Order: sequence, then C-alpha cells, then structure tokens
Amino acid sequence: MKARVFVTLKSGVLDPQGKAIHHALEGLGFAGVNDVRAGKLIELDLAEGTPQAVIEDMCRKLLANTVIENFRIEQVG
Amino acid sequence: MKARVFVTLKSGVLDPQGKAIHHALEGLGFAGVNDVRAGKLIELDLAEGTPQAVIEDMCRKLLANTVIENFRIEQVG
Repeated sequence: MKARVFVTLKSGVLDPQGKAIHHALEGLGFAGVNDVRAGKLIELDLAEGTPQAVIEDMCRKLLANTVIENFRIEQVG
Repeated sequence: MKARVFVTLKSGVLDPQGKAIHHALEGLGFAGVNDVRAGKLIELDLAEGTPQAVIEDMCRKLLANTVIENFRIEQVG
C-alpha cells in the first residue's frame, strides 16, 4: 500500500523558502500571487495493512517536527 | 483562491533524501517500509480566477525542474 504524508509549516511560523519562491515568481512577472508556503511531500510504500496509527507514529517521530509543522496522511489504495 | 502544487521526482531518478528517510525509519524500528520518495508541496495563494495555464507556467518556469521532476496542480476553492 502507498501513503502520502504532507508536511506543512504551522501558520505563524516564518517560511523563508516560501518567501523566496514568492519573490522569484514576482521577478518572473507573475502578478496576483498573494502568498506562498513551502512544504514537504513524502511518499511511502508500505507493507499491506500498515495501520494509520503506525504512519502517524512515523510522522511524530521522524517525518514532521510537530513543534512547528502540521502533517496530513493520505492513504492510497 | 488557493492552489497546491505537488512536485515529485520522476521514477528512475535517484532520491538520496528518500533513501535517508527510509534508513532512518528502519533505524527507529519501523518494519515493512518498502520505499520512500521525497517531494515538495508548494501552497500558492493566488488572485481569484488565475487560470490553470498560468499555474502550469509557474511550475515549468520555476517550481519544478521538468527534466527530473513531475508536477501536479490541485486547485482548492
């Protein structure tokens, strides 16, 4: 089974990478960009039947820094 | 309007970051992880009515390196 983990910065946490992307988009002439936030996407190929709780455990222990980041898990198939 | 851009490495492209995550998960005792691929998630807050074509243009020109990466756009609201 496959699972996707989306890791995003909590609101209020400064995001210099997002700011840099925002600035670069404006430099390329893209108007109408209000804000950009950068996050991570981690695609896991797991043994069949891995419980959601185990994936959440992976997120808490390694994939996300829960002090400053939120995570969302999406199971695929 | 908001849009999410998912940038993933094309299959066949080596992914050292994913490999490192895989190794670290095993080190933490998580069994049954077959593969890990790391990608990027970019959340855009755009002016209302920004066409899909413009977002694709942003991806091709800046957000993704289309030689080695695929991108997928998801419009939210």
